[in-house]
Amino acid sequence: MGANFRSDNETPVAAPIWDAMAEANQGTAYSYAEDHWSERLDEAYSELFERQVRVLPVATGTVANSIALASVSPPWGSVYCHRNAHVLCDESGAPEFFGNGLRLVPVDGPGGKMQADALATAVHASEGHGVHSYAPAALTITQATECGSVYQPDELQALCAVAKGKGLATHLDGARFGNAVAALGCAPADITWKAGIDMLSFGASKNGCMAAEALIFFEQQDRWEIAERLRKRSGHLLSKMRYVSSQLLAYIENDLWLRLASHANGQAAAFTAAVEAHPEARLEYPAEANEVFVRWSASGFKALEQRGIEFLFWPGHDDLARFVFGHTTSEQDTQQLISALEG
Amino acid sequence: MGANFRSDNETPVAAPIWDAMAEANQGTAYSYAEDHWSERLDEAYSELFERQVRVLPVATGTVANSIALASVSPPWGSVYCHRNAHVLCDESGAPEFFGNGLRLVPVDGPGGKMQADALATAVHASEGHGVHSYAPAALTITQATECGSVYQPDELQALCAVAKGKGLATHLDGARFGNAVAALGCAPADITWKAGIDMLSFGASKNGCMAAEALIFFEQQDRWEIAERLRKRSGHLLSKMRYVSSQLLAYIENDLWLRLASHANGQAAAFTAAVEAHPEARLEYPAEANEVFVRWSASGFKALEQRGIEFLFWPGHDDLARFVFGHTTSEQDTQQLISALEG
Amino acid sequence: MGANFRSDNETPVAAPIWDAMAEANQGTAYSYAEDHWSERLDEAYSELFERQVRVLPVATGTVANSIALASVSPPWGSVYCHRNAHVLCDESGAPEFFGNGLRLVPVDGPGGKMQADALATAVHASEGHGVHSYAPAALTITQATECGSVYQPDELQALCAVAKGKGLATHLDGARFGNAVAALGCAPADITWKAGIDMLSFGASKNGCMAAEALIFFEQQDRWEIAERLRKRSGHLLSKMRYVSSQLLAYIENDLWLRLASHANGQAAAFTAAVEAHPEARLEYPAEANEVFVRWSASGFKALEQRGIEFLFWPGHDDLARFVFGHTTSEQDTQQLISALEG
Amino acid sequence: MGANFRSDNETPVAAPIWDAMAEANQGTAYSYAEDHWSERLDEAYSELFERQVRVLPVATGTVANSIALASVSPPWGSVYCHRNAHVLCDESGAPEFFGNGLRLVPVDGPGGKMQADALATAVHASEGHGVHSYAPAALTITQATECGSVYQPDELQALCAVAKGKGLATHLDGARFGNAVAALGCAPADITWKAGIDMLSFGASKNGCMAAEALIFFEQQDRWEIAERLRKRSGHLLSKMRYVSSQLLAYIENDLWLRLASHANGQAAAFTAAVEAHPEARLEYPAEANEVFVRWSASGFKALEQRGIEFLFWPGHDDLARFVFGHTTSEQDTQQLISALEG
Repeated sequence: MGANFRSDNETPVAAPIWDAMAEANQGTAYSYAEDHWSERLDEAYSELFERQVRVLPVATGTVANSIALASVSPPWGSVYCHRNAHVLCDESGAPEFFGNGLRLVPVDGPGGKMQADALATAVHASEGHGVHSYAPAALTITQATECGSVYQPDELQALCAVAKGKGLATHLDGARFGNAVAALGCAPADITWKAGIDMLSFGASKNGCMAAEALIFFEQQDRWEIAERLRKRSGHLLSKMRYVSSQLLAYIENDLWLRLASHANGQAAAFTAAVEAHPEARLEYPAEANEVFVRWSASGFKALEQRGIEFLFWPGHDDLARFVFGHTTSEQDTQQLISALEG
Repeated sequence: MGANFRSDNETPVAAPIWDAMAEANQGTAYSYAEDHWSERLDEAYSELFERQVRVLPVATGTVANSIALASVSPPWGSVYCHRNAHVLCDESGAPEFFGNGLRLVPVDGPGGKMQADALATAVHASEGHGVHSYAPAALTITQATECGSVYQPDELQALCAVAKGKGLATHLDGARFGNAVAALGCAPADITWKAGIDMLSFGASKNGCMAAEALIFFEQQDRWEIAERLRKRSGHLLSKMRYVSSQLLAYIENDLWLRLASHANGQAAAFTAAVEAHPEARLEYPAEANEVFVRWSASGFKALEQRGIEFLFWPGHDDLARFVFGHTTSEQDTQQLISALEG
Repeated sequence: MGANFRSDNETPVAAPIWDAMAEANQGTAYSYAEDHWSERLDEAYSELFERQVRVLPVATGTVANSIALASVSPPWGSVYCHRNAHVLCDESGAPEFFGNGLRLVPVDGPGGKMQADALATAVHASEGHGVHSYAPAALTITQATECGSVYQPDELQALCAVAKGKGLATHLDGARFGNAVAALGCAPADITWKAGIDMLSFGASKNGCMAAEALIFFEQQDRWEIAERLRKRSGHLLSKMRYVSSQLLAYIENDLWLRLASHANGQAAAFTAAVEAHPEARLEYPAEANEVFVRWSASGFKALEQRGIEFLFWPGHDDLARFVFGHTTSEQDTQQLISALEG
Repeated sequence: MGANFRSDNETPVAAPIWDAMAEANQGTAYSYAEDHWSERLDEAYSELFERQVRVLPVATGTVANSIALASVSPPWGSVYCHRNAHVLCDESGAPEFFGNGLRLVPVDGPGGKMQADALATAVHASEGHGVHSYAPAALTITQATECGSVYQPDELQALCAVAKGKGLATHLDGARFGNAVAALGCAPADITWKAGIDMLSFGASKNGCMAAEALIFFEQQDRWEIAERLRKRSGHLLSKMRYVSSQLLAYIENDLWLRLASHANGQAAAFTAAVEAHPEARLEYPAEANEVFVRWSASGFKALEQRGIEFLFWPGHDDLARFVFGHTTSEQDTQQLISALEG
């Protein structure tokens, strides 16, 4: 059977994560996040981020994003995001649901990245009309982006500066945060609170965990209790939260998250180089993390499929496809793909 | 004092409407729309539209639009509208509120008009992603448009054909429906159900009434009970509904609505001709009903203001302004404006 | 035809109210509550209540109640009310709709009145369970009650003291506030802010107006902007708000509201005396304002109906009926009813 | 350290469940419930229930309950439940959240059980008032109850008969369904669809699983797609659903669920016998499954605590406590408790 490059969310659980869950699986433990693992999250993540943070453990990225946005926006608030953002395109309106009808406002930008001036224009367009308009409330940025590109710290700073100038709360959707940090070689703080980010959905499920995401509050910590209510009210306060929290602790122990992400990025880079060297195929977007978007002939992609390689066509296209590299993508998998590409 | 061209919603109540309310103000009447006036609405509007309709009387256009859309869209449904649409820009998210988080999807188009191919593209963009995306649910069109232009019957037919092909319900926001019908000289049926429209917010407040709009179901009549529930649940089932329904009956009696709208359109046309003849000012959009958008120098507009003429600058602009003509705009008012324009 | 005692919301508009609307119906006026009538509300009602208040004019009692409660309760907040309260039994869940799923908690009590100890017990029952329970958020009291009784000032004080001790906001549903004040002969302040009430739905539609209620903030004035958003978002910001506000101004001018309510109460008192003197019929609840609940034989009520008198049976009963007296109930109407009762 | 009788949701994962998850943890698998484990659920549960069912796997009981109720009730629908029901008392309004403001109506009844006539009365009380009232929509019953009692099949039949007569959908909250079936010695079908139940929240997390519940549709299968939308929209469509579904498959394989529940019930029975034989302590409710509520002196309970035994006082009481027995409660644990009770 051929290798699978459909999505990093199709990977299994990494061994250290599994072992941590097994270790947590001893005897009884207090339920509803009052266990010893959950209670250690704040400290562990505060150390990682070099400042005091509050952590809300949850099972999916969608709920982390939705709670974050609903915590800082009124029902009549608008939340600015890139037009390709997961919150806009792939969550069936979860932010609107949690936010009681808040509105996502798409902002365009090349390579999956929002730009500061486009954000400023979008916010400006909804000002000045008082109670008749939505009230600008928040900005959400995806890092690494849905297109496989990565924001530089100064790009994030510029976006957050616009947001703060307009009184918006700021959120980073870090479903692939590990891939971004690994790609940039920066400290986690550099692309979060030091750049002006208030809240982070720190993704773990795609990068070695089973079902675990940490919603992290750098600022807006007075919203943590609202967030906690939203978690309960949406059915996301697991009785046996120890199994989520133990994942999240193991995930950042000994840089596991960065090692797993670096591996995935490395495999993506090898494939990226092959695409760049290819006479016909070309990169659709800058491939800076673990996702590679390739524009090629329909027949070329067809040939890949015939060799059993699994990947996803972009909805509505037969000449644009996405290849995602995960923590379990082996060098053999990548070589198989490269060989197939090269015909 | 100068004449007021700020908005047709600043006009007083027309005499025949007032008289009808006074006539309704005799003795007791059953409450909650079980009065004799409310009970005659279906018949009166069925005759006007040359087919059986069901009418839901309400007090504002926002609630009429919101109930219509929420009646036909699930919370995870998307509703397509022009990017300038009142439902999107001026209702503070009322459709999202009534629709429990439904999503409005803006479609661009020149002169305030959506075009059939742009609609098809927008709907297509949200297909094919199953439960992860919003489900295309409805189309709402504004007639006359927020830019003062008017859809021709065949333009509406083309839009509705796209919508029906995708399984969308169709709604017409007719806040200025009278101005559109007066401009086109067509039958009301021609630009509603005969063109493929399922529901109409038949506006009356801007054109002589006090606070009255008729939400009309041509198709989707099985949604009327949902609509009735939404009216009650949003606090819009007035106990003394007779005062709304009597307005709506008088409004269409003896073509009052068309006479009032024709008058307003005529005044707008006189001003439009003056703008077209002006050496510097120019029309921003085709002025086909009772709204005229003028692009001119900031100093020019300043001079108008200094002569006491009231109008609205477009938010964020000092060289673009809107002039609206209403049922009480007199020829003198219009002449005063034209004289001021001509310096 | 027989007299109508079905409900005071079936009465027509009182002449001074009508005249005030007619006076407001001159020329253009700024829309969306920026007119001169709306702008005078705060001052007029501040004078009436002997302290600074903020007023939000709306068209129905349901929206006034719902906005008040949603302004002070989170979606996971509980609002305590009498089990017969209009907000619970007759608004199809409008408070839950405006409040995004807040919960109404019924409290029992004789004669339509909640008692302080029952309230304390009900609040206590939902405490101590943290994020798993609803958070006690508000108390709403109806004055005059749905049963026709009237709270004494000290009864209201006792209820508000319990509420304040638990951190609850307090609201008075004053759909028949005029009847209560007229019955008590007190100052409006005595049974509102002086008793601990934060917000009042000051009813006018049942007592001479067409469609007008004033939501009054004594305390919680920082919630006024939320309230304003909810009004807009629910479609209740009428473009021609002058017609609502002019009613509300006329309503309290020269004690009109009290004179109209006193008249209605007086007619109710005459009938009450007749019931008390009757050999078989008896009062179901203390009849202290303008509603009289009578327990009698089914055949007795049948006889009333046969004489053309209109009134409402209590849902599910044929031996319990409500008689409501309004500002247009004439002495002849009341005499006709009394004669019929006496057979 | 003393034994823990606080809650069965504090137990670890049973070995066969763990092994099934480990087996699922091999290589990549399609995400979002398109994996091989999720695809086998319908068949496996259809066999268990002796009829065709549809299964929606989720991670918590709260989301299973909320989706079930929101799938069958409009926002203006009322859902009848026992006044001690988990959906009412312990989910922070999740049903109201998922149901966009639906209303839970508490029904009283001894021993945690609703009775058919009380249900009929409660439904009747909200009828006959049309659009002004909530519309009766659904019934939810808890089996085993929150008080540790168990409905007999004929009791469930009687409740469902009332519900069906009123047009209500029926739901069983089976957070401890296994304990109920083990206690009754019946077939799972006997207390679900054969008794008139449309939907079941089949609990597994409390009885050996990590975080897994199966929402099962016997009837109302046309609502499954709404349920699927609600799962996605609330952030409960796990990308790696295989880890939930593999639990749910292992849970019913070789009667694991019944064996685990029988063990817990047996331990509870031993303690129940000891309470019954005790001179002072007494059972608060019939102890028929794995929960035992004991009324005793505060000093008696104090003594238990001093011996390190963990259990929960009922909120607001010091003489009423709950003891829950789980799949890992050992005979030694139970003996330790009994010895402590006996002093």
